[in-house]
Amino acid sequence: MIIGAIEAGGTKFVCGIGNEDGVITERVSIPTTTPEETLAEVAAFFKDKQVDALGVGSFGPVDLDESSSTYGFITSTPKPHWNNFDLVGELKKHFDVPIGFDTDVNAAALGESLWGAAKGLDSCLYMTVGTGIGVGALVEGKLIHGLTHPEMGHIMVRRHEEDSFDGRCPFHGDCLEGLAAGPAIEDRWGKKGQELVDSPKVWELEAYYLAQAIANYVLILSPKKVIVGGGVMKQAQLYPLVREKVKEILGGYVQSEQILEKMDEYIVPPGLGDNAGLAGAIGLVK
Amino acid sequence: MIIGAIEAGGTKFVCGIGNEDGVITERVSIPTTTPEETLAEVAAFFKDKQVDALGVGSFGPVDLDESSSTYGFITSTPKPHWNNFDLVGELKKHFDVPIGFDTDVNAAALGESLWGAAKGLDSCLYMTVGTGIGVGALVEGKLIHGLTHPEMGHIMVRRHEEDSFDGRCPFHGDCLEGLAAGPAIEDRWGKKGQELVDSPKVWELEAYYLAQAIANYVLILSPKKVIVGGGVMKQAQLYPLVREKVKEILGGYVQSEQILEKMDEYIVPPGLGDNAGLAGAIGLVK
Ligand SMILES: Nc1ncnc2c1ncn2[C@@H]1O[C@H](COP(=O)(O)OP(=O)(O)O)[C@@H](O)[C@H]1O
Ligand SMILES: Nc1ncnc2c1ncn2[C@@H]1O[C@H](COP(=O)(O)OP(=O)(O)O)[C@@H](O)[C@H]1O
Ligand SMILES: [Zn+2]
Ligand SMILES: [Zn+2]
Repeated sequence: MIIGAIEAGGTKFVCGIGNEDGVITERVSIPTTTPEETLAEVAAFFKDKQVDALGVGSFGPVDLDESSSTYGFITSTPKPHWNNFDLVGELKKHFDVPIGFDTDVNAAALGESLWGAAKGLDSCLYMTVGTGIGVGALVEGKLIHGLTHPEMGHIMVRRHEEDSFDGRCPFHGDCLEGLAAGPAIEDRWGKKGQELVDSPKVWELEAYYLAQAIANYVLILSPKKVIVGGGVMKQAQLYPLVREKVKEILGGYVQSEQILEKMDEYIVPPGLGDNAGLAGAIGLVK
Repeated sequence: MIIGAIEAGGTKFVCGIGNEDGVITERVSIPTTTPEETLAEVAAFFKDKQVDALGVGSFGPVDLDESSSTYGFITSTPKPHWNNFDLVGELKKHFDVPIGFDTDVNAAALGESLWGAAKGLDSCLYMTVGTGIGVGALVEGKLIHGLTHPEMGHIMVRRHEEDSFDGRCPFHGDCLEGLAAGPAIEDRWGKKGQELVDSPKVWELEAYYLAQAIANYVLILSPKKVIVGGGVMKQAQLYPLVREKVKEILGGYVQSEQILEKMDEYIVPPGLGDNAGLAGAIGLVK
């Protein structure tokens, strides 16, 4: 089976060809400009590839309700040109094959559960801390949708007592994303994260917020594995800081070996690295 | 089909007889003393009822992992005598029928989705605000288990600026339950909730905490209905306060008609009233 995979992001569309084992044999990156331009390039890439199916993990918000008239749309994004764009519909015009569709982070969670750090588990969480904070989750073997789809990056967290930064989420100010995504680090400290390697306070605060969020996810979803990636997590010192803080916040309440003794194997980087999203898109249709 | 249902609580075991439509024809309440005493009474009640199956929704924490050697146990409860008690095993000794087992609040969520406020939906949240705060959830048609099971009552919330109460959760101090369950209200104000009807500040604070938690649940689980019950919610003025506050916290980010326009139908009391748990226990085996 030849599977086409698309990781549709706000900066770039990564397109790839793979098979049902998640092996990716080709990949290209197409800049996200206007829907017309970008989709024309996407269509051109897949044109002669004879894909049997197409899996799409997309930036959001998206409509995942198959009974809805706007199923497959990118809905209320502030991104110019992309508001209410019928992504699945546009792909259908070009390719008469089954199309799987979900959020980018749900796809990545699925990819990690099939071939990555959560291989064989029916439950995991995938979190990316980059330009924004996005989280997808597999629960009881299924990706969570629901009323819309989770937007876990925007939960409210308790402020660190030494943090006077206002937060920069346009919707909530100081929600998790507003306080802890890459641009928040840059606004708070006046430098990008990659230039703050030697400032321990930066990573103490960052770990405090990420750990709070992860503790809440653990209490609410009880995932069997927590996978955290994205640009900000290139600061690998964050992993031990986050693990310790999650343990501290949970206070021994969740009586699980994973949390009490094997935290190093519980909160981990993506097993598939930067391929989680693309592999996950394959997983949506395999 | 004759179905036996047990709502195993820390104060009482409610036992009932019902059918696969969730109709309950008999119910008794047995005090929770020691496992020996209580289970003897439970067994006596069901003895001549010729049940075809038994559904049990239990206080926790419980082990829900069917592959575990302690499946069906009440595990690390601080409740004297009940620590590591093999509840399902004990019932099996008396009744050679299929036994369904889950948390009390998961069962209630299921009951509400089958016959109550979330009827016909494949996703809902059931929250009880009483002596503790317990929450169960149905997601994509399944009750969430995972690593252990959710303990959503213990998430961290942001403190209200006028609240100097320490919180009373033995594990976390000022987690949600520590700040907002019935006993926290009593400790903070020196009177039980039922005697504080005319103190608007009490309910403003209470709504602030409950709304924060619900906003987080919505962002993380995207439930199609949020059902809130329990002793504290007898203060019906809480519902509009909580609804308004949830909307405010979400800040227009979750673009769903339910949240933007139909909040009165989105956050609601249990449709089954006090029968949610027992009906849900039936649902576990029907
Ligand atoms: N090595 C690094 N250390 C800290 N922050 C980084 C590092 N690399 C990238 N970032 C931050 O991560 C963000 C970009 O995230 P990334 O995951 O690469 O992209 P996106 O989220 O747009 O897909 C930027 O805010 C950037 O400053
Ligand atoms: N009418 C009421 N108004 C406010 N609080 C109440 C009311 N009735 C009960 N409560 C509080 O709810 C808690 C008991 O919760 P309940 O749901 O009845 O029992 P449980 O959680 O033990 O099953 C107590 O803390 C009590 O003070
Ligand atoms: Zn936000
Ligand atoms: Zn607690």
